[in-house]
Amino acid sequence: MARILVIHGPNLNLLGRKEREIYGSDTLAEINRQLSEVARQHAVELEFFQSNHEGAIIDKIQEAMETARAGILINPGGFTHYSIAIRDALSAVALPTVEVHLSNVHAREEFRGRSVIAPVCIGQVGGFGKQSYVLGLLGLLKHLERDAATM
Amino acid sequence: MARILVIHGPNLNLLGRKEREIYGSDTLAEINRQLSEVARQHAVELEFFQSNHEGAIIDKIQEAMETARAGILINPGGFTHYSIAIRDALSAVALPTVEVHLSNVHAREEFRGRSVIAPVCIGQVGGFGKQSYVLGLLGLLKHLERDAATM
Amino acid sequence: MARILVIHGPNLNLLGRKEREIYGSDTLAEINRQLSEVARQHAVELEFFQSNHEGAIIDKIQEAMETARAGILINPGGFTHYSIAIRDALSAVALPTVEVHLSNVHAREEFRGRSVIAPVCIGQVGGFGKQSYVLGLLGLLKHLERDAATM
Amino acid sequence: MARILVIHGPNLNLLGRKEREIYGSDTLAEINRQLSEVARQHAVELEFFQSNHEGAIIDKIQEAMETARAGILINPGGFTHYSIAIRDALSAVALPTVEVHLSNVHAREEFRGRSVIAPVCIGQVGGFGKQSYVLGLLGLLKHLERDAATM
Amino acid sequence: MARILVIHGPNLNLLGRKEREIYGSDTLAEINRQLSEVARQHAVELEFFQSNHEGAIIDKIQEAMETARAGILINPGGFTHYSIAIRDALSAVALPTVEVHLSNVHAREEFRGRSVIAPVCIGQVGGFGKQSYVLGLLGLLKHLERDAATM
Amino acid sequence: MARILVIHGPNLNLLGRKEREIYGSDTLAEINRQLSEVARQHAVELEFFQSNHEGAIIDKIQEAMETARAGILINPGGFTHYSIAIRDALSAVALPTVEVHLSNVHAREEFRGRSVIAPVCIGQVGGFGKQSYVLGLLGLLKHLERDAATM
Amino acid sequence: MARILVIHGPNLNLLGRKEREIYGSDTLAEINRQLSEVARQHAVELEFFQSNHEGAIIDKIQEAMETARAGILINPGGFTHYSIAIRDALSAVALPTVEVHLSNVHAREEFRGRSVIAPVCIGQVGGFGKQSYVLGLLGLLKHLERDAATM
Amino acid sequence: MARILVIHGPNLNLLGRKEREIYGSDTLAEINRQLSEVARQHAVELEFFQSNHEGAIIDKIQEAMETARAGILINPGGFTHYSIAIRDALSAVALPTVEVHLSNVHAREEFRGRSVIAPVCIGQVGGFGKQSYVLGLLGLLKHLERDAATM
Amino acid sequence: MARILVIHGPNLNLLGRKEREIYGSDTLAEINRQLSEVARQHAVELEFFQSNHEGAIIDKIQEAMETARAGILINPGGFTHYSIAIRDALSAVALPTVEVHLSNVHAREEFRGRSVIAPVCIGQVGGFGKQSYVLGLLGLLKHLERDAATM
Amino acid sequence: MARILVIHGPNLNLLGRKEREIYGSDTLAEINRQLSEVARQHAVELEFFQSNHEGAIIDKIQEAMETARAGILINPGGFTHYSIAIRDALSAVALPTVEVHLSNVHAREEFRGRSVIAPVCIGQVGGFGKQSYVLGLLGLLKHLERDAATM
Amino acid sequence: MARILVIHGPNLNLLGRKEREIYGSDTLAEINRQLSEVARQHAVELEFFQSNHEGAIIDKIQEAMETARAGILINPGGFTHYSIAIRDALSAVALPTVEVHLSNVHAREEFRGRSVIAPVCIGQVGGFGKQSYVLGLLGLLKHLERDAATM
Amino acid sequence: MARILVIHGPNLNLLGRKEREIYGSDTLAEINRQLSEVARQHAVELEFFQSNHEGAIIDKIQEAMETARAGILINPGGFTHYSIAIRDALSAVALPTVEVHLSNVHAREEFRGRSVIAPVCIGQVGGFGKQSYVLGLLGLLKHLERDAATM
Repeated sequence: MARILVIHGPNLNLLGRKEREIYGSDTLAEINRQLSEVARQHAVELEFFQSNHEGAIIDKIQEAMETARAGILINPGGFTHYSIAIRDALSAVALPTVEVHLSNVHAREEFRGRSVIAPVCIGQVGGFGKQSYVLGLLGLLKHLERDAATM
Repeated sequence: MARILVIHGPNLNLLGRKEREIYGSDTLAEINRQLSEVARQHAVELEFFQSNHEGAIIDKIQEAMETARAGILINPGGFTHYSIAIRDALSAVALPTVEVHLSNVHAREEFRGRSVIAPVCIGQVGGFGKQSYVLGLLGLLKHLERDAATM
Repeated sequence: MARILVIHGPNLNLLGRKEREIYGSDTLAEINRQLSEVARQHAVELEFFQSNHEGAIIDKIQEAMETARAGILINPGGFTHYSIAIRDALSAVALPTVEVHLSNVHAREEFRGRSVIAPVCIGQVGGFGKQSYVLGLLGLLKHLERDAATM
Repeated sequence: MARILVIHGPNLNLLGRKEREIYGSDTLAEINRQLSEVARQHAVELEFFQSNHEGAIIDKIQEAMETARAGILINPGGFTHYSIAIRDALSAVALPTVEVHLSNVHAREEFRGRSVIAPVCIGQVGGFGKQSYVLGLLGLLKHLERDAATM
Repeated sequence: MARILVIHGPNLNLLGRKEREIYGSDTLAEINRQLSEVARQHAVELEFFQSNHEGAIIDKIQEAMETARAGILINPGGFTHYSIAIRDALSAVALPTVEVHLSNVHAREEFRGRSVIAPVCIGQVGGFGKQSYVLGLLGLLKHLERDAATM
Repeated sequence: MARILVIHGPNLNLLGRKEREIYGSDTLAEINRQLSEVARQHAVELEFFQSNHEGAIIDKIQEAMETARAGILINPGGFTHYSIAIRDALSAVALPTVEVHLSNVHAREEFRGRSVIAPVCIGQVGGFGKQSYVLGLLGLLKHLERDAATM
Repeated sequence: MARILVIHGPNLNLLGRKEREIYGSDTLAEINRQLSEVARQHAVELEFFQSNHEGAIIDKIQEAMETARAGILINPGGFTHYSIAIRDALSAVALPTVEVHLSNVHAREEFRGRSVIAPVCIGQVGGFGKQSYVLGLLGLLKHLERDAATM
Repeated sequence: MARILVIHGPNLNLLGRKEREIYGSDTLAEINRQLSEVARQHAVELEFFQSNHEGAIIDKIQEAMETARAGILINPGGFTHYSIAIRDALSAVALPTVEVHLSNVHAREEFRGRSVIAPVCIGQVGGFGKQSYVLGLLGLLKHLERDAATM
Repeated sequence: MARILVIHGPNLNLLGRKEREIYGSDTLAEINRQLSEVARQHAVELEFFQSNHEGAIIDKIQEAMETARAGILINPGGFTHYSIAIRDALSAVALPTVEVHLSNVHAREEFRGRSVIAPVCIGQVGGFGKQSYVLGLLGLLKHLERDAATM
Repeated sequence: MARILVIHGPNLNLLGRKEREIYGSDTLAEINRQLSEVARQHAVELEFFQSNHEGAIIDKIQEAMETARAGILINPGGFTHYSIAIRDALSAVALPTVEVHLSNVHAREEFRGRSVIAPVCIGQVGGFGKQSYVLGLLGLLKHLERDAATM
Repeated sequence: MARILVIHGPNLNLLGRKEREIYGSDTLAEINRQLSEVARQHAVELEFFQSNHEGAIIDKIQEAMETARAGILINPGGFTHYSIAIRDALSAVALPTVEVHLSNVHAREEFRGRSVIAPVCIGQVGGFGKQSYVLGLLGLLKHLERDAATM
Repeated sequence: MARILVIHGPNLNLLGRKEREIYGSDTLAEINRQLSEVARQHAVELEFFQSNHEGAIIDKIQEAMETARAGILINPGGFTHYSIAIRDALSAVALPTVEVHLSNVHAREEFRGRSVIAPVCIGQVGGFGKQSYVLGLLGLLKHLERDAATM
């Protein structure tokens, strides 16, 4: 059964507890639970990982190559805007990756509109609150199906 | 029954016939058909509109206010990067709007990474080929449900 | 009797119905009626034109040359910031033109502070709500009087 | 009877004597006289002030708060483009202020297109020669009437 | 017999009547007549199209694909500097396209030196007045011959 | 008794041992001792934390929310200029935060003049060597008193 | 007994009367009184100076050299962002200078984040309301003590 | 009989031998031969000059003034993007000059889109391979004819 | 006998007393004395003016028009880089003006390389210490002679 | 015997396994083995360190000061472009440092051409694959010899 | 007897023959003759050199070191704006150098306001036509006298 | 026996005689001698070339193609930052090229950090004084060996 790595970047462990007007009232546990439900429907497994450490996220991305994950769903949080090291990790492992954001980054501070990670992903979803994760996962699953179909 | 307006911007009528390496092989008719299927499952109706004319798209957006559309799903195509007039139309009618792109605009020419329309939308989906539309529609539907729930 | 062309750009047909906190509560009809009143006092006639289509506005500007309009009063709306084609049309017909804006564009998003059309106009009025139109028309009439006086 | 402060910034005392091709042939006295005429028709009084000193203009703006002026009509001249101190003064006294320019600043050197003062004004009028002042005053008066009407 | 589409962008219908110091005294009809003469000598046919509407130009470019035009000669006028939608249309139909300008755009306002359309054309000709069209057509014909020769 | 978290960013553990001409001769221990003395006088307790790891600093900031710290005093060191993740952490926990710098960052390399963290702090102190910390702590204490007074 | 010059830039005379949400409710007199109290505790005298005139501030800074002031505490107000002449004055007299701001300039308009004066000061304090002055004075006093100690 | 100077800038002597995918397979000799043929048909003579030395090209341009050349056809190669000295030479001799490029410079590295020489030429032709030269020469000849006709 | 106005901008009254490593050891009195000697040799008179007040300098420039000064020699000091009001004054009075600087502004901070005043002067001299004034005066005198000769 | 610290930044542990077209087919172990061979020939010892954690790299750099390493050879990977914290660490420990890159960073994405670390190193080597390390080590050894010679 | 090298950059050999409205009607021979006269009065000799070749100018500057020239007077012409190689040559030979320009470069195209050479000169003179050379020479001579006096 | 071309750009003939604090005390002859020694050890021959003339360097690069040089080692000196013509020459001859710099260009003026030549080289070495050449040569030799091995 295919397994997908779900990475939550810095400060996402606070979800539902802080700045709800921006990020919504769902906790990370609720998001993960909902994602698991979607995964179950599509017969894939999810591995969840949250860290405030850039290096730990890079380690995890590299590990995904070893453990043969089928793809990566990542909300890079604040790292979105400067972590070329995470970008390089994603580029190196070359797994299909989808970038998600809870808020509409284009309607906030100008610097949030620039993602150094987006160019090495297959797609992006943002602005739908926790649904961004669900939609991103669905997009990733469709992408994997399509790849499988063309093999 | 709620109705949602689906707007395809300039050159999207050529889908599936040209530049398939960028935009995929699905025709606009196929995308619309697939979207209709999703809509049917969620008990909403879709109205499709494609135009190469910025003004016609603005007219249509304004009309959506008259005809009480529940929301808008838009792929602004090339207008994404400069049509402040479309942005103003979306801002004026104030209907929940989702912006979608077939390709990953962040992995193409630099100017494609900037959307003047994104700041007035609720969210964005891009990079998943025709699935971007499906995911965008699902995101819009979830948004509408949430709004309905809080009334 | 001199005739002046009044052009309302994209989305201005929605005036008074949407975003009243920015643009005020007057409808376009009310603005036009008030402008007509001013025109009547100065013994000129007005021709009103509103369009969401850049090309239709250009056609109308060109037509103003054929129909020997004495001048143009234009609120280019969102086209203000990128329509070099409208700028070129105004430059080509070389009729005295006044650019008006309902809101104070300098107190909104930064991009609204830049007008590609202003350099080919005789003057600008902005920030006074519907009075921007009235003041712009008065300015245009004074300009025409002065020109007439120096012939 | 309401009183309005009219501020002429640096070098405007030379009006009508120098660079007539840019600024026209009217002297400041003539402009003031014409403004007084308009004021008289609207039953308001004007106080005129010209200075080449940024500090003196700030003092005057502050004084307008003490003397309960109803509004300010200002042509900041060269200060338009850098005097954040004047901007702060206008922002602090919070009187309705209209910025006027004799010439069309958008058709001259590029730096003249940027006003640090505009964002704290209610509106701007420029390009109509001495009529810019008249129109600006009319706009300010209309603004005050509207405010009065809504009290 | 091969047919080539000649597109004249916004305001070019005014040629010979306005701003002759910039664009010369030839009318569009004269330019078309001269182009037809050149075409006749090379045994190709021309289809002429002028519009002030960006959308109409995009429609026409797409139609050129349906009607199997051999190539496109386009003077995008003011659209040169911002119409990514026209660029995308040209890129999609993938017909050999030559961009022409009457004036030397590099000797005018700075923004005229940037063309968003040039990167998807095979070449550019500018600065020769109506001869720009003739030269551009010759260049396009040579390109088509070379392509034919290598088939 | 209120407790305040004092965070020393990367390389600040080297204080007093390296680059004394820029950062002075005090060690971090001496700075902490002096801060403790000030804290004792104001009847608050301090918790000290130094790390070269961005993630560890984010963890600590989040922990401050759990442990109900009254505020944060932070010298982000090199992270000042790019760690949007630390900024987001501070923004999320929403504790009153003061940013301090030993040196006058505005008199060094240009990039040191930009802080991505400053916008989410209540204030900044820089240039006074170890006294920057003391002054920053005093400022934070005053802020807390004021807040307490208004409850 | 050492004397320190305290300079309040343009519009600071309005403190406590206008824009309290930004600058707080303390008047300049109250701030000066509080500063005097701090000074008395440290056995230094203060000389207060407020002006809306850039030139008067420069004169005063130069005078501080004549009257052998021990240092300068300055809130340059709006001059912070462009008065190179004040910067040059501070640089010329070479007295230890501390720059203070009531508000957190980094959380307001972008242009407020740039100070042309900061590079010639020893340090900066901002964001603490009137406490910015107190902290700035304390920092200056510490700096003077340290200098005295090393003589 | 009129004589025209044809200048080939740096590295153009390698044409047909290197980087054929960019510049085509024609040698400079073949280009010159073809240009001579065109010249012969128009009863003008050509003088060819190739150099990798900016100074030698400037000398040659100056010489063209002495030897009364009727015009200049120049491919400045890499000098296009920075040689203000060549620009000044062309501006000084004031002979009608046409700039040509083999490749479409707008479809290559971004810096190739900027020509410091274009503003002092009458026109530009680029992207047609060796035909760029032929078209450029024809354009220059037409320009000379027109000039002659208006004498 | 012709009279020339010599204006010393802000902080130049401190010359010879401060920052000698940048500005040299000559006092302003010595510079003026030396300039008077040069003037005497050329049978012109000089009027000296120094101020730290931008407004006072503008007043003086305007006065030079009234008193029929033959030209202006100005060292604008820090105003060089932002005083558009002084620029406008010089432009308005239209007297031949020479800008001088003691130091080589191009070898100092980058912002010192930009002068908003230079474009309205006839020439500039900088980097020669007090000799900059002497050379600037000689240049101005030569310019006046040449003008006189061509009358 | 002198010891040199060799730091491999993020993702370099994947060398030889991923993106070989950019980084070559050598593994990090092979690179280290080859470096050890070179070191042996020059009678120095190497300590190897790889981490994906910025903080761990900073810790290691600081440790190099404690353990009296003679110099540092570092490939900062993605941290090259933003880790001011690593730069500050290198600057603080003040050990001779050489920056190496496997690929030619100047021939890739534009952002890779900027290194925030280079200014505090003695030199840089890039583009030679694993030989970049060898050459960098040789350069560092030569530098140390020269230093030793001048003691 | 001291000898000074006078370098005239590209296109200055055309002086007096072309573009007189910008550069005046004096030929280079006349300028040199006048400079020789000034030199004779100050008992120095001049060596004149003009070239359109950047390399030849660099050779000459290096030669000036061998032949012990006392200083250099240079008008770099178009090289002013990009020849870092000439800058490096001047920096290397370290002879006192004065940069002169005939026209006021700040009143022409924007790029002419930037000199890459100015930072390594002692001073600049521009805008006085041929007198720029005379003034520049006088400034250089004064500089040499002062240096001699302090030996 | 393979031959490699070593190119020294402008002003490098002065090495060891000027600016030793930046470039070291070795003369070019010593550098060449040392390089020859290295070459001898690797059984290749070197051809040395130094010129201050951009054109001569381009000629030499082209000649290297004729004479079948195996590769090029180049220190472009000041040309590094603007000579697109040299870049084009290197790109055209397509010989493996290594760019070397004596100093660490990233620790000097900002413009020295940008090389227009680097993108067409295989690698860069800088900051090691004369050892930069040696290391660059070794890198080039390794590259050639590797190429040879894969043939």
